[in-house]
Amino acid sequence: MRTTQTLDLNDARTIIDLGIAEAERTGNPMNIAVVDAGGCLLAFARMDDSWRGSVDIAIGKAWAARAFDVETKALAKLAQPGADFYGIHASNDGKVMIFAGGVPIKEGETVIGAVGVSGGTGKEDESVAEAAAQAFARG
Amino acid sequence: MRTTQTLDLNDARTIIDLGIAEAERTGNPMNIAVVDAGGCLLAFARMDDSWRGSVDIAIGKAWAARAFDVETKALAKLAQPGADFYGIHASNDGKVMIFAGGVPIKEGETVIGAVGVSGGTGKEDESVAEAAAQAFARG
Amino acid sequence: MRTTQTLDLNDARTIIDLGIAEAERTGNPMNIAVVDAGGCLLAFARMDDSWRGSVDIAIGKAWAARAFDVETKALAKLAQPGADFYGIHASNDGKVMIFAGGVPIKEGETVIGAVGVSGGTGKEDESVAEAAAQAFARG
Amino acid sequence: MRTTQTLDLNDARTIIDLGIAEAERTGNPMNIAVVDAGGCLLAFARMDDSWRGSVDIAIGKAWAARAFDVETKALAKLAQPGADFYGIHASNDGKVMIFAGGVPIKEGETVIGAVGVSGGTGKEDESVAEAAAQAFARG
Repeated sequence: MRTTQTLDLNDARTIIDLGIAEAERTGNPMNIAVVDAGGCLLAFARMDDSWRGSVDIAIGKAWAARAFDVETKALAKLAQPGADFYGIHASNDGKVMIFAGGVPIKEGETVIGAVGVSGGTGKEDESVAEAAAQAFARG
Repeated sequence: MRTTQTLDLNDARTIIDLGIAEAERTGNPMNIAVVDAGGCLLAFARMDDSWRGSVDIAIGKAWAARAFDVETKALAKLAQPGADFYGIHASNDGKVMIFAGGVPIKEGETVIGAVGVSGGTGKEDESVAEAAAQAFARG
Repeated sequence: MRTTQTLDLNDARTIIDLGIAEAERTGNPMNIAVVDAGGCLLAFARMDDSWRGSVDIAIGKAWAARAFDVETKALAKLAQPGADFYGIHASNDGKVMIFAGGVPIKEGETVIGAVGVSGGTGKEDESVAEAAAQAFARG
Repeated sequence: MRTTQTLDLNDARTIIDLGIAEAERTGNPMNIAVVDAGGCLLAFARMDDSWRGSVDIAIGKAWAARAFDVETKALAKLAQPGADFYGIHASNDGKVMIFAGGVPIKEGETVIGAVGVSGGTGKEDESVAEAAAQAFARG
């Protein structure tokens, strides 16, 4: 038996609020999802006027960031034709989103959950996810 | 062309907070989802210690309540063997949850979204969804 | 943030060995799966001459027993026509197995994983899963 | 009528143990799956701290290595844009993993099953799968 740590609902809602604040600052409405250490959805918000098709993508980015303990931005490079993980997006019933916007949340070196953001360019999604993760880490 | 009305993210988060308050009052942790008038997920929260298998169910109940503009409790009766809609749970890629806990949100006679709750018995789920919907309607 | 406990791979292999021993004793070859506290597969074994169609079912029973913190035997009753959870087998992309053979593994009152068994009648599956869970609990 | 040969559960568990030993030697925790000559899962183990997203991938690599009687490393080249099998990862419900880490197990020239490994780089996955297959062949 092992003892592990995970985000809880309070953490998840805090991370989403931090993401919404960043998205409002830049003017790009976003879908934001947070999963726990087991990859299970804890909380989600779709900002008004953001893309409907991004619900699934935001959740998939959060899931992938925890499933492989990596930023999906890094996964994107590994999943290009010719790279190590080309084809990974077909695994796990299509849940592995391989573009920027998914960021693991850590406590020290341990991944305790992840945030996924979708609604703009890869750079925009990534910057909102990063801002939320970093503001959460600062406490 | 038509003008329609829908819940927005603020409404969805308010409904979820009302649902959480009711679930805390009764001591049964719940998964709570809110969809807009288009049936698209607006917000979601999984309370600590609630069932992991209820993420999909809460979202499915909210979706079904809007998809058919009916409480899923009523849908349950219609979906029994021998009844009119027997088999409906196999439609729409399995998104039609046919047990109690999905409640449409209305403005006057118009459905503007729905809430779905999962985490306990049908009666418990239904009472949290109803309480949230009614408290929201009172404003 | 929360601290939780989960089965590890060693535990999972022990539980499978206990299940195999029980299945050999009764002469019914089985598929046996163990998931961790997050519902994620830890270990699996398909005994020689057991059903190929039971791979997915054993994994689904283990998943369901953790997803709803309940023996799937109890879930079976709740999922009958007219009962509270009728239709639940259509949720979660068909992963919710609603017949006997899935048993949560607990540490005190906390569910830390689950075992799922498939290969015979509901009674046979259940008795192997129960035997493995109880032998594991005795340590 | 034909007589065929296949790995059995004992073989599969031996191969997994050999893979775990190699993974422990190199310090990269892995997911390891073994399928029989029919492509059906025989045994699986997810080592502690290995990726959750690799459960499906390890199983998919083992399946693909038997489905096409080829190392998935070789399949990767054939599945690149412009190559003969481009698009193959979309077939078979997404089960065809097209990156390194799946290795057929042979008796003489006959494929009798396969092992799939996932948890690190392509090179790491491949080397664990190869080590396990070769140690098993040596007996």
